[in-house]
Amino acid sequence: IQSKLPSVSTTIFSTMSQLAQQYGAINLSQGFPDFDCPPELMDLVSEAMRAGFNQYAPSPGLPLLRQKISQKTQQLYGHSANPDTEITVTSGATEALFSAIAAVVQPGDEVLVLEPCYDSYVPAIELSGGVPVFVPLQFPGFRVDWQQVEAKLTQKTRLFIINSPHNPSGAVWQKEDLDALTTLTQQYPFLILSDEVYEHMVFDGQSHHSVLTVPALAERSFVVSSFGKTYHTTGWKVGYCIAPAALTTEFRKVHQYLTFSTATPLQHAIAAYLDNQEHYLTLPAFYQQKRDLFASLLQPSKFELLPCTGTYFQLARYRQISDLPDVEFSQWLTKEAGVAVIPISVFYHQNLDQGVIRFCFAKKEETLRAAAERLNQL
Amino acid sequence: IQSKLPSVSTTIFSTMSQLAQQYGAINLSQGFPDFDCPPELMDLVSEAMRAGFNQYAPSPGLPLLRQKISQKTQQLYGHSANPDTEITVTSGATEALFSAIAAVVQPGDEVLVLEPCYDSYVPAIELSGGVPVFVPLQFPGFRVDWQQVEAKLTQKTRLFIINSPHNPSGAVWQKEDLDALTTLTQQYPFLILSDEVYEHMVFDGQSHHSVLTVPALAERSFVVSSFGKTYHTTGWKVGYCIAPAALTTEFRKVHQYLTFSTATPLQHAIAAYLDNQEHYLTLPAFYQQKRDLFASLLQPSKFELLPCTGTYFQLARYRQISDLPDVEFSQWLTKEAGVAVIPISVFYHQNLDQGVIRFCFAKKEETLRAAAERLNQL
Ligand SMILES: CSCCC(=O)C(=O)O
Ligand SMILES: CSCCC(=O)C(=O)O
Repeated sequence: IQSKLPSVSTTIFSTMSQLAQQYGAINLSQGFPDFDCPPELMDLVSEAMRAGFNQYAPSPGLPLLRQKISQKTQQLYGHSANPDTEITVTSGATEALFSAIAAVVQPGDEVLVLEPCYDSYVPAIELSGGVPVFVPLQFPGFRVDWQQVEAKLTQKTRLFIINSPHNPSGAVWQKEDLDALTTLTQQYPFLILSDEVYEHMVFDGQSHHSVLTVPALAERSFVVSSFGKTYHTTGWKVGYCIAPAALTTEFRKVHQYLTFSTATPLQHAIAAYLDNQEHYLTLPAFYQQKRDLFASLLQPSKFELLPCTGTYFQLARYRQISDLPDVEFSQWLTKEAGVAVIPISVFYHQNLDQGVIRFCFAKKEETLRAAAERLNQL
Repeated sequence: IQSKLPSVSTTIFSTMSQLAQQYGAINLSQGFPDFDCPPELMDLVSEAMRAGFNQYAPSPGLPLLRQKISQKTQQLYGHSANPDTEITVTSGATEALFSAIAAVVQPGDEVLVLEPCYDSYVPAIELSGGVPVFVPLQFPGFRVDWQQVEAKLTQKTRLFIINSPHNPSGAVWQKEDLDALTTLTQQYPFLILSDEVYEHMVFDGQSHHSVLTVPALAERSFVVSSFGKTYHTTGWKVGYCIAPAALTTEFRKVHQYLTFSTATPLQHAIAAYLDNQEHYLTLPAFYQQKRDLFASLLQPSKFELLPCTGTYFQLARYRQISDLPDVEFSQWLTKEAGVAVIPISVFYHQNLDQGVIRFCFAKKEETLRAAAERLNQL
């Protein structure tokens, strides 16, 4: 059988998490917390099951959950999304990304992708017959070079995929970035797919600049987020997509045949918990503290940390330790030093090696300390 | 924006369930039980969450769940599937169907579809650029006409989608059907996608003929099933796909970018519960009793029931009641008689109207009685 995705293998996240387990390494690779979600959330799931919410949810998502998402979006970004026609609950952000791409990318369509980028974007584009057009983020700050973006945009660009706070770099868009994007929308007819799953992890007093804050952007955007990152429930796989009604119509056509609906008791629990604003309003401080702790713990090490303003990822240069390419260095680090990380070359279509790896610091203090102890010995 | 699925609208299941709610009708349309799953299963979910299983499951599924699926498959069908390389857990059977199609159907590939069929098959084929080739099942018995199948098969047929026990008809394949299929595999190189989600609902002493019972079929098949139907948890969205390693490799490439993984605590609970063979061994008797009850309750009605040997669906002719096309009749029945059903023309690509609707009898006795009381007045 001829592969439709010949260049794809097992995701780096699966590969590194498995290697971590195999070698008993501390797993700072795949992005997930090693601490638990709020216990109330678990209680709410148990209650929902007991109350009989175990059959199909409506395909667009529980009405109550969509209402709460709408309220939150209004409060945070001043954007009013109609829960009936503009919000769809999905089985994680990954499903939302795939559905949006499958809904609008036709064979031959160009899709602008800033790299490095999350590894699902490009295969999803390819499965729809689209042509990814790559624009590198500037190294090492990972800012967008808007001139390069404009140089690659054409009247045939169907979709522009953006992501702030940015995985894997931790870079965060500024207001000027939204402005530059808005200017481009006046000249080109592309749609936008904005991956904002790290919206509640922005540090140093900065704020998240959602495309939803700019009406001229919101009106042509699919905005994807997820409860997994925000509520420490990456394994529950509940995400969502906000898009104007016409785009949501196309999105839901795909979504209804991809998964149809998302786990009902989990949706009930999250809907009930979303009133707790405290949780996400304190999240930036919570993760900033972890970022700072991890950085201070690595002070004595030979790693050179790059700036991190958002997400729960910390990039680091390792050239003072090794000349290995980043994939091999990550494997070596897992096996020999007992700390699993993600090489960032895998997020570039040509596997650009810059001697940089990614740590996930969404971990308990003791985990970060244990990892640092090992890393400081290199 | 130009639709990629111009002929698709909201699924009939969403449409009818919503109409049922709007008119306060008894909902015998979308296929889900109105009774609960075993309480132990809910307890197991609560335990899994408390034990900290709230982060990403491995993308192919929890190893323990895959092992249990493998054991069950061995016991029931004598097929040994390697849990590491041949079994993938998905977010419902719908995701498994989509992934299999997206994994192997290339633009221009022919895909053989027996109709009427579950409404996700054709849009999934179209999104991959495939060409559905339709073979009607014989009316009103819904047996496969193997000569017609052979007439439509070509060397270019990439995939043949089959489904027994059959939704919406309740027809069940015989051993001869597997034999006929096996013969065709000797002449044509197609792959098989076998939707077996109703495997535990076969009545009247007959048995489910899984393609897994025939090595020559298993070696070229994706076999899809789900825990939703079997454990009365349609809203948990946990399904799976069994396929030979080479096919599973391609399947997982798509799955990992579609949803990446499926809700972890739900997978834990099902894995622990799968040792309870009693549950699925008694399921045929449980649903046969419901089928028989429903049929006897409708004895005085003007509906003419078609044979039902499997699934939890009962087809019925309604021409003695109305001359309306089945879509309009279903709407009328929901609004005026207070019972929601599914018109079966929507499962045909040309919306063939045969004056037949589908009832779901996966309902409490009191629900079936209340529905029959209304239906008997027509
Ligand atoms: C779906 S596994 C990947 C989790 C994640 O977002 C990351 O590690 O980048
Ligand atoms: C995913 S909703 C459809 C449920 C079902 O299998 C049916 O009613 O046919």
